[in-house]
Amino acid sequence: MLKIGILGGGQLGRMLLQGAANYPVQTYVLENDWECPAAHLCHGFTLGDIRNFDDVYHFGKPLDGLTIEIESVNVDALEKLEAEGVKIYPRPSALRIIRDKIQQKQFYKANDIPTSAFRITEKKDDLKKFADFFPAVHKLSSGGYDGRGIQILTSMQDMHLGFDQPSVLEKKVDIHKEISQIVAINAAGQTALFPPVEMIFNPVLNQLDYQLSPAEIPQQTTWRVEAIALKVVKDLKTPGIFAVELFIDRNGDVLVNETAPRVHNSGHHTIEANFSSQFDMLWRIMLNYPLGNPKHIIHAAMVNLIGSDGFSGEAHYEGIDDILKMDNVFLHLYGKKETRPGRKMGHATILSPEKADLVFKAKAIRQKLRIISQQPQITV
Amino acid sequence: MLKIGILGGGQLGRMLLQGAANYPVQTYVLENDWECPAAHLCHGFTLGDIRNFDDVYHFGKPLDGLTIEIESVNVDALEKLEAEGVKIYPRPSALRIIRDKIQQKQFYKANDIPTSAFRITEKKDDLKKFADFFPAVHKLSSGGYDGRGIQILTSMQDMHLGFDQPSVLEKKVDIHKEISQIVAINAAGQTALFPPVEMIFNPVLNQLDYQLSPAEIPQQTTWRVEAIALKVVKDLKTPGIFAVELFIDRNGDVLVNETAPRVHNSGHHTIEANFSSQFDMLWRIMLNYPLGNPKHIIHAAMVNLIGSDGFSGEAHYEGIDDILKMDNVFLHLYGKKETRPGRKMGHATILSPEKADLVFKAKAIRQKLRIISQQPQITV
Repeated sequence: MLKIGILGGGQLGRMLLQGAANYPVQTYVLENDWECPAAHLCHGFTLGDIRNFDDVYHFGKPLDGLTIEIESVNVDALEKLEAEGVKIYPRPSALRIIRDKIQQKQFYKANDIPTSAFRITEKKDDLKKFADFFPAVHKLSSGGYDGRGIQILTSMQDMHLGFDQPSVLEKKVDIHKEISQIVAINAAGQTALFPPVEMIFNPVLNQLDYQLSPAEIPQQTTWRVEAIALKVVKDLKTPGIFAVELFIDRNGDVLVNETAPRVHNSGHHTIEANFSSQFDMLWRIMLNYPLGNPKHIIHAAMVNLIGSDGFSGEAHYEGIDDILKMDNVFLHLYGKKETRPGRKMGHATILSPEKADLVFKAKAIRQKLRIISQQPQITV
Repeated sequence: MLKIGILGGGQLGRMLLQGAANYPVQTYVLENDWECPAAHLCHGFTLGDIRNFDDVYHFGKPLDGLTIEIESVNVDALEKLEAEGVKIYPRPSALRIIRDKIQQKQFYKANDIPTSAFRITEKKDDLKKFADFFPAVHKLSSGGYDGRGIQILTSMQDMHLGFDQPSVLEKKVDIHKEISQIVAINAAGQTALFPPVEMIFNPVLNQLDYQLSPAEIPQQTTWRVEAIALKVVKDLKTPGIFAVELFIDRNGDVLVNETAPRVHNSGHHTIEANFSSQFDMLWRIMLNYPLGNPKHIIHAAMVNLIGSDGFSGEAHYEGIDDILKMDNVFLHLYGKKETRPGRKMGHATILSPEKADLVFKAKAIRQKLRIISQQPQITV
C-alpha cells in the first residue's frame, strides 16, 4: 500500500483525506497544530512546521509520495526528497516557479501564455519608473496569500501604498469575468479538464460572493480558457492538479491571472457536482490510477462560509438548520476550533439545474449562516 | 461540539466517518482491531469488544450519542447508557426486537405488517410438527449474519439440516423481486424515504450480483413498499436509519423480509447517486439537523467487491485500473488488510441514466476485479 503525505492539515487536507478513504492508501499529515482540520483523518499525524527543512525532510523520507495544501512549504527539502526517490505532486521545480510571483509572470511570458503586462520592482521607489503603467496591481513576489500582499495602485498618487520588497506591478485588467480552470495531469502526461468555473465577487467587500459551475461563457471562450490552462500546466512539466485562474476582459480576451499547483477553493463543488472530484482526481494521479471523468453531473454554486466580522475565538455556528433545511445544499464545516473575521471556516455547495435557484440559495446561505465566538471581539 | 461514538470499525463506520467530516462533530470508534477500516478516521479510537458490557459502557459513558455498525452489540450496556442520558441510534428497545429473529417476526405480526407466515422452533425436532409448512426457510433466532444461520428446507427430507436452537421457520416466498427501502426518521418523528432499491441475485452463487437504484417496479408497488417500510420504522419507535428489506412475490404482494436498524449495504450508492446519502442522513439525525433530500440525482448500480475464492491472507487487488478507466464508476475499497473468500472488501457504484450501461458495467466490474492474497489458499 502506498504511503502518501500531505504538507498542511487544513480544509484541503481534510477533504483530500475524505476522498482517500475510497482507496487503499496510507495517509500522513504534517502540521503544527494537533487540532487542525485534517489531524484525525490520517493514519499518521506529525507535529511540525511545513516551512522547516528538517521537519519536511524527516516527514517525507519514509513516504512514497507527497502533496501540498499551500505553496509556502520548504521546497529545498522537497527537492532533496525528490532526488532521493519520493514523488512530489507538484514537482519542486514547478513549485519554485509558482510560489514566486515574479518567476510566475516571467514563466508565462517566456512560454507565450497570455497574461497582463507587468514590470518588476525591487523596492517601492522603483514604481516611479512606471508612471505610464497605472492603474495597476502591485503584488508581493512571495509571502502573499488570500488577498494579503496585493495592493491596487490607481495612479502615481497611490505609490506610497506599494511594497518595498521584490514585487510585480501588473497592468490592471478591465475584468469582465473571473474564471478558474482546474486541470489534472498524470505522470504519463494525460490530462483531464474540469468545466471552467465562474467566480462572482462582491464589489463592495472585494470578496468572493459565490461561484458557478460551469461558467456562463461562450463556447469559443471556453475553448480558449481550456487551451491556455492546458498550456500552463503542460509547461510546468509536473503531474498534479492545478487551478489556473484567468480573467476574461471586456474585449473577450483571456489572460492568466495566476496558478495554484494544488487542489483549490474553486474546485470544492466538484465533490458533489462532478463525476470525479478534484480530490479524487489527485488521488488517482498519486496512486497511478487512470484519471477520472471531470464532467459535471449537474450545475452547482459554491459559497465560502467565513468568520463573521467582529468575532474572534472559539467558533459557534448560527443558522446551520436554516441552511440544511434547503434542498440540495451540502454543508462542509472544516472543524476549525477558532473563528476570526474573514477566516474560511467552511463552504456550502448547491446543486440545481436552475441558475436562479443556485444564486438565490447562495445569497440566502451567506445571509443566514453566522460564525461567531461566544464573546464578541471588543473593538475600541 | 457533540461527541458521537460508533460501535464497530468496519466499512460502515469508515463511510460514516467520511461523511462526518462535513460537520462539526467529535467522532469515536470502538473495535477490537487497531487496523480496522475506520480506526484512523476518528478523533478517538478505543480497542475493545462491542459485545462486552464493560467495554461498551465505558466507551459510551462520556459521549453524547452512539450508533452501531452491526446488531451484535451489548444491548444491556446500551440500555444503561440510555437510562443515563446517552442518545442511542437506534434505541436499545428497537435493537432488542430486531436482533432476535423470533421477536422481529412477532413484531411484524403484532403490528399487522405483511410478512411471510412463520412458526417458531426451539429445537430441530420441532420441525416435525410443521410438515405442511414446506418449502420453508429456517433461520437461527440470533447469531446469524450475511447468509450464515439461514437454511433452506425444501421438504421434510431436509429436516436434518435445520437448527437445533431457537429459530424461525418461514414459509418460502415465491419471490419476484427483492427490494430494500431505506428510511430515515429523526427524534421529532419526521421521515425521509430513499427511492427503493432492487437487489439482483446470482441464482447459482445465491449472492448479490448487483443492485439498481431506483428499483424497476410499478408506481403502485413503490407506494406499498414505502407505506409498509414507513410503518415498520414508526412502530419501532426510535430515531435512526433503517433498511427494510422486502419481497415482491409473483402475485405482486409486498412482504417484509427483515429490517436492519442502521446504515446498510443496500444504501452505498446514495453517496454518489442521491442528494443526501444514508451516511449524511444519519449524521443529520444524530446532530439534530433537518433531514436531507433522499431523492436520487441519477440512476445507479452498486456491486460488492468480495474476496476471490481460494485466497486468504494479505489483500492484493487486480484490475483496479480496468475499473477506474470506466467513466462514472466510483470505487470504494475499505482498506481491510486481509482478504477471505466472499469477504466484503469494497464496492463500486456506477452512475448512468441508461440501465444497459449500468448492468454492463456492473457485470464487467465483477469480472475484472480480483481480490487475492500473495499465496493462494491450499485446499486439499
